Amino acid sequence: MASKNLSKEFEKIVGKSNVLANEADRFAYSYDSAVLAPTVPKMAIRPTSEEELGKVVAFCAENSIPMTVRGAGTNLSGGTVPDSEDSVVILTQALNRILEINREDLYAVVQPGVVTARFAEAVAAENLFYPPDPGSQAVSTLGGNIAENAGGLRGLKYGVTKDYLMGVEFFDAGGELIKSGSRTVKCVTGYNLCGLMAASEGTLGIISKAILKLVPPPRASRAMMAVFDDMRAAANAVAGIIAAHILPCTLEIMDNVTINLVEDNERIGLPRNAAAILLIEVDGHPAQVADDAETVEKVLKSNGSVQTVTARDAAEKSKLWEARRKALPALARRRPTIVLEDATVPRSKIPQMIDAIGAIAKKYDLLIGTFGHAGDGNLHPSILCDKRDANEFSRVEQAIDELFARAIEMGGTLSGEHGIGTAKAKWLERETNKATILFSQKMRRALDAKALLNPSKMTAISR
Amino acid sequence: MASKNLSKEFEKIVGKSNVLANEADRFAYSYDSAVLAPTVPKMAIRPTSEEELGKVVAFCAENSIPMTVRGAGTNLSGGTVPDSEDSVVILTQALNRILEINREDLYAVVQPGVVTARFAEAVAAENLFYPPDPGSQAVSTLGGNIAENAGGLRGLKYGVTKDYLMGVEFFDAGGELIKSGSRTVKCVTGYNLCGLMAASEGTLGIISKAILKLVPPPRASRAMMAVFDDMRAAANAVAGIIAAHILPCTLEIMDNVTINLVEDNERIGLPRNAAAILLIEVDGHPAQVADDAETVEKVLKSNGSVQTVTARDAAEKSKLWEARRKALPALARRRPTIVLEDATVPRSKIPQMIDAIGAIAKKYDLLIGTFGHAGDGNLHPSILCDKRDANEFSRVEQAIDELFARAIEMGGTLSGEHGIGTAKAKWLERETNKATILFSQKMRRALDAKALLNPSKMTAISR
Repeated sequence: MASKNLSKEFEKIVGKSNVLANEADRFAYSYDSAVLAPTVPKMAIRPTSEEELGKVVAFCAENSIPMTVRGAGTNLSGGTVPDSEDSVVILTQALNRILEINREDLYAVVQPGVVTARFAEAVAAENLFYPPDPGSQAVSTLGGNIAENAGGLRGLKYGVTKDYLMGVEFFDAGGELIKSGSRTVKCVTGYNLCGLMAASEGTLGIISKAILKLVPPPRASRAMMAVFDDMRAAANAVAGIIAAHILPCTLEIMDNVTINLVEDNERIGLPRNAAAILLIEVDGHPAQVADDAETVEKVLKSNGSVQTVTARDAAEKSKLWEARRKALPALARRRPTIVLEDATVPRSKIPQMIDAIGAIAKKYDLLIGTFGHAGDGNLHPSILCDKRDANEFSRVEQAIDELFARAIEMGGTLSGEHGIGTAKAKWLERETNKATILFSQKMRRALDAKALLNPSKMTAISR
Repeated sequence: MASKNLSKEFEKIVGKSNVLANEADRFAYSYDSAVLAPTVPKMAIRPTSEEELGKVVAFCAENSIPMTVRGAGTNLSGGTVPDSEDSVVILTQALNRILEINREDLYAVVQPGVVTARFAEAVAAENLFYPPDPGSQAVSTLGGNIAENAGGLRGLKYGVTKDYLMGVEFFDAGGELIKSGSRTVKCVTGYNLCGLMAASEGTLGIISKAILKLVPPPRASRAMMAVFDDMRAAANAVAGIIAAHILPCTLEIMDNVTINLVEDNERIGLPRNAAAILLIEVDGHPAQVADDAETVEKVLKSNGSVQTVTARDAAEKSKLWEARRKALPALARRRPTIVLEDATVPRSKIPQMIDAIGAIAKKYDLLIGTFGHAGDGNLHPSILCDKRDANEFSRVEQAIDELFARAIEMGGTLSGEHGIGTAKAKWLERETNKATILFSQKMRRALDAKALLNPSKMTAISR
């Protein structure tokens, strides 16, 4: 269908102002946060109700138009890059209503376009807690968090998005409304399609509504920073904390490269000479927080921490976490391109993984800043480079390849929280096997015979 | 293939002693714990290694033999009843090895036939904790727990089996080995097939191995019993405890019928005149346990509890929980047939659900004993009857129908933890919709074209 006619058809469903077909709009939705070439879509459509969303999907299905659903586009593996120039991008940003926060039964019902941080605030205002906190939470959407099974800083103790997904409604590739899960704590009524939608990257259906679990908030918390002269010692301290049966709500690491780039930009007062710092927060009952903090301090000391700073009040705590929040922007500013990886290992393997990252940086002569969720084995080695420098970028690609190989050798995984998309698809078979890819493709093809839902992502299918 | 030749073929794979084809064996595997007519299978096969399991599945696939996988047969919805007299039952009981308990990274790797309680003990011996505790844990297997997404008494605070499933390997309908998940806390490498296998009731693949999450054990716990003159008051107390932001590790209810049947058999000293008792356990840091217990006692009192008994030591605690453990056997002894339901509602709806059960018992003139996991809205109204009395059993069926209708009206679900199997399949569409059933069947057919994996269960498919 010619673009002009297509626009007219979509306008009938969502109104003129919600069909975005001019060049600037099309370009705006041609890329996401992954380091990948853009693909300019035919247009973007912004449904304003679940009903409109269903009609848009059904129209695309009837007319064999490929669809890429997009929340805030913070995706780091290309899941929101359109598949082809025939693609339509479906925007969820106008589906941004929190439909219910149930204080008695500890759940919420939301539309997919609700911004994660706004949701967390609304929940906190009801004296409840929604733990998943992906790095992009200030802009990311809950629908995107589900489709990518987003993690975050609290994964260690509180789990990831899928652990809070009680129920979901979505439109399948034919535009039919599918329902799975419940408002109840327990539900085994039919297949766990709700679980399957987590991390499905927009390939099995387009989420229109979700039921999310809430928990009572912790009564107290304490944050501290530990300074290390030696990266390996910091990594050993991480393993030591878990071995002592403490599950901090966050346990983050920043290496010397990251510390200095943050200081260059922010002047927070971080120790520029430190090989690494750990940022740790424990939460729970006040007595437990006191006990846990004491144990953590002992473990830090016995593993060679040269200094431990405990935040004395909310302002100091906020300052500590600001350092962590600034890590990615500070790294990103250093060179034209930042390749942010998330190969993940069992947490006791953090020391080996830290060593491996150092060796790889040296071998390929690359600047790698490492920070991330040390407590759950989910590091973010960030390669600072320039994509336009073909020689350098080829070394980057070799480095990534080796990084994944080492993570898998250690019993780890390709991606802890960023997803597969197109960026990591070629490594998928190495971690699983050929049969698993075929199984996934068979399932997918059965549910999307025309290959319309983000067809080039993850385990690609074609028409 | 004639039975004799078939036996010979299986003997080549698993050895003579592991092909169970005599009449007694075949009858033994013709039923499970659901109230359903038996179906006598062709034979039962007991693989003794993952490799043998794969060969058995591949052989059945090649020869179009329907397979029903069976752990301990404690299934309450018919998931382990063979589909037809052509079926082969695959027993996991010899795949009973705990392959690894990792204390540093808090996970275990197990074969599917490991008995739940034995696993929990082995984990406890390493000073770790595996929370899921289905009622049948003394005999149930972990593979069965996964395939049914088994719940239990601790669901309220600790979640259900799927919340502990980090990774899984299984043989698909063609006998290919599929891998999903990881030993890492976070993993988004490919579809969440691991989550999909939870509650899949033996219809998508036969589990050969699982990676299960472990947690540090709580440092302290306290158990108490609260006595109520009025069922509704007990139900209100349950809602009140959750509203006070206490998540007990267990919060169970037993009604007067159940209390008296337990006392008839066990003479534990339960209050025979009570309308209901609540059995409550809080756990965590010692200070939190003390605080939570105090809050719980206040809520109980303000909701009209006439007596609260706190267990002073391990022996008294064990006695309290013995009362709960004896509920099902005591009810089961009262009449020839017990129909144990598990319709589940959002927890604040427990008072209404209790009322509804009372009204249904009266309307259909049935004896219903109610006990169960009040804290997560998962009650077990148990209809005591005689299946051979056609008139009575027809009233039972009407009562169940009404029970489900009321649960769904209250925003609840057909099944909290017992599964769909064949017992509840006819109600599935009422809770979801036609499109969801078709979506499930399409997915399933793509993965099992010959309809060999438990084909009559849940969303049935045929060849």
